[in-house]
Amino acid sequence: MAISSVKIVGSGLIGTSIGLALSARDIRVQMSDLQPAAALLAQSLVDDDARFENNHAFDVVVLAVPPSAFKDVLAQEIELNTLSTFVDILSIKTKPLLDVELFQEILPRYVGTHPMAGREVAGAQSARGDLFVGRPWIVTSGNVVSKKSGDLAAELISLCGAIAVQMDPHEHDQAMALISHTPQLIASILAAQLVGSNTKWLGLIGQGFKDVTRIADSDPQLWKEIISENAENIVPVLSAFRKKLESIESELSNPSLAQSIIESGNAGRKLIPGKHGSAARTYIYLHIVIDDKAGQLAAIFNDCAKADVNIEDVSIEHTPGQNTGLVTLSILDLGKAQILEEFLRTAGWKVHSTSN
Amino acid sequence: MAISSVKIVGSGLIGTSIGLALSARDIRVQMSDLQPAAALLAQSLVDDDARFENNHAFDVVVLAVPPSAFKDVLAQEIELNTLSTFVDILSIKTKPLLDVELFQEILPRYVGTHPMAGREVAGAQSARGDLFVGRPWIVTSGNVVSKKSGDLAAELISLCGAIAVQMDPHEHDQAMALISHTPQLIASILAAQLVGSNTKWLGLIGQGFKDVTRIADSDPQLWKEIISENAENIVPVLSAFRKKLESIESELSNPSLAQSIIESGNAGRKLIPGKHGSAARTYIYLHIVIDDKAGQLAAIFNDCAKADVNIEDVSIEHTPGQNTGLVTLSILDLGKAQILEEFLRTAGWKVHSTSN
Repeated sequence: MAISSVKIVGSGLIGTSIGLALSARDIRVQMSDLQPAAALLAQSLVDDDARFENNHAFDVVVLAVPPSAFKDVLAQEIELNTLSTFVDILSIKTKPLLDVELFQEILPRYVGTHPMAGREVAGAQSARGDLFVGRPWIVTSGNVVSKKSGDLAAELISLCGAIAVQMDPHEHDQAMALISHTPQLIASILAAQLVGSNTKWLGLIGQGFKDVTRIADSDPQLWKEIISENAENIVPVLSAFRKKLESIESELSNPSLAQSIIESGNAGRKLIPGKHGSAARTYIYLHIVIDDKAGQLAAIFNDCAKADVNIEDVSIEHTPGQNTGLVTLSILDLGKAQILEEFLRTAGWKVHSTSN
Repeated sequence: MAISSVKIVGSGLIGTSIGLALSARDIRVQMSDLQPAAALLAQSLVDDDARFENNHAFDVVVLAVPPSAFKDVLAQEIELNTLSTFVDILSIKTKPLLDVELFQEILPRYVGTHPMAGREVAGAQSARGDLFVGRPWIVTSGNVVSKKSGDLAAELISLCGAIAVQMDPHEHDQAMALISHTPQLIASILAAQLVGSNTKWLGLIGQGFKDVTRIADSDPQLWKEIISENAENIVPVLSAFRKKLESIESELSNPSLAQSIIESGNAGRKLIPGKHGSAARTYIYLHIVIDDKAGQLAAIFNDCAKADVNIEDVSIEHTPGQNTGLVTLSILDLGKAQILEEFLRTAGWKVHSTSN
């Protein structure tokens, strides 16, 4: 292992998640941020005991800042870290390359990358050390990178549990327009259609609408940069989408047209690679009907602790004007889930299980 | 309780889920379907021991068939069940009403409804008895319904754990165009854009794209009917969406336009009601760094119970093989959140707060 210490500049979701992943593999990590409070939270999550000398020579400096801050932060970190390998994680790759090329001397130590992982929630508090596990992590730097720096970047990606995928910066930006940036715009515009609509209708919204628009919760500050800087590649995709809408509008009352739209959607979905090559997990869900009163959650978790079963996630559904709720526990291990289900049932809980 | 037996015609996802819900409340249920195999599966899932005389008088007959089969099934069931109350669950309400009005004499015994629940998977095998728990269930029949039949329908809805919402059929169809049918088309068209694209790119697809397009897995046979029969209400919504796309295409490189699109999406999402059927609220989030070991959640919830603060939701982030995790508690009341934060900190937890 060649990496022993890493500085992460930018303590947001991605930076802090990288920090968590590396720290779990015993890499010493220094988190930093323009906002001291963000850096403090991130550092306490990632590696509470880390202490570095002012002139410590980090093996890798990860630049996990938004596109707008990138150029200034880069210039500053180049000054501070004269030997380190630099790795950025920007979601667009063509334009930042122009910034990097202003510093010709660091090109051999510079690796442009983009981890294909994220969440609709921002900030260190949303970071997860397993965010990159099994996910592709695109590397867009080519031959100009030294073997040493290329190897360090590959090691960093591998330590995060991700799979390196080599790609040309321009192709990267085209691919993102299709699979990430256009869907973001579509989801945002769809969610925006609720503004000004009848309040009574909003109460009818179900899981389908919520899923389609989940990423519409994304951070405007980050996305205004991604979208505007990749507009050139997004426009053709968005425009094809718009033309498709135009072509169906006048024929929507034709059942076979409607059927073919849904069938094409089915076909597109089937092309999405499944669990091969990615560590998407199968969870067992235990659904527990509870009385909606204080202490019920504590009682459930006390029972889970007694059963010695690790809960990966939990969600709570309340019901308007009703005195029951539904708690769903997510468990990774089927055997453990069965033990817990049996244990909770014996303890008197109403439990139903499903899996994804 | 006035309902003791129910016949459900149509043993798909919704029909069978209603059967499961009623059977769990000790209502005797007969499942039926044009396809005997589907009816058999549904009957064995729902109520394996049910036996009815040929001329059994069901209190309620639920018509859970697709729009295209509706008219014929209705005519047939009217013949068979001369005293029963009829309840349909069709996703469109204006057009089926025309079919029902052909049988003027049954209007006092006819209640049009639409449960706002579903899944992207079809069939009896995907049915869930808790599908309707806490969900709105729209009732579109007005004054022409007898008190007895209105009460029976209300009881059926309540037995399924759902909340009846009265609505005019035309308003229902407009609302569905906005919150269900247009999102379905958008998701399908977006998923269809993958057809013919670079295979390498498909491997990069992440959770965001998957969520936006999840409902693109929906059943073409069902949806061709919904969409074509509600085209009149869908077209204005779809067309507004298309015009919005048209207006942004040429300006996408403008960061403030890009920002405003994402912000409008954020604003739309905030309008989706949260818990308790109310308008979405502002939550205070307490982020607590925990050791990832059994008993920590129970300990936190025990402390929350001591502080007498109601937790609206909870999420857990942790990483396999890592020894810290992050628990996020959502609290509605700012004052209560501050009390809890202080209490937890005093009790030795590492707490950070944010709000939405």
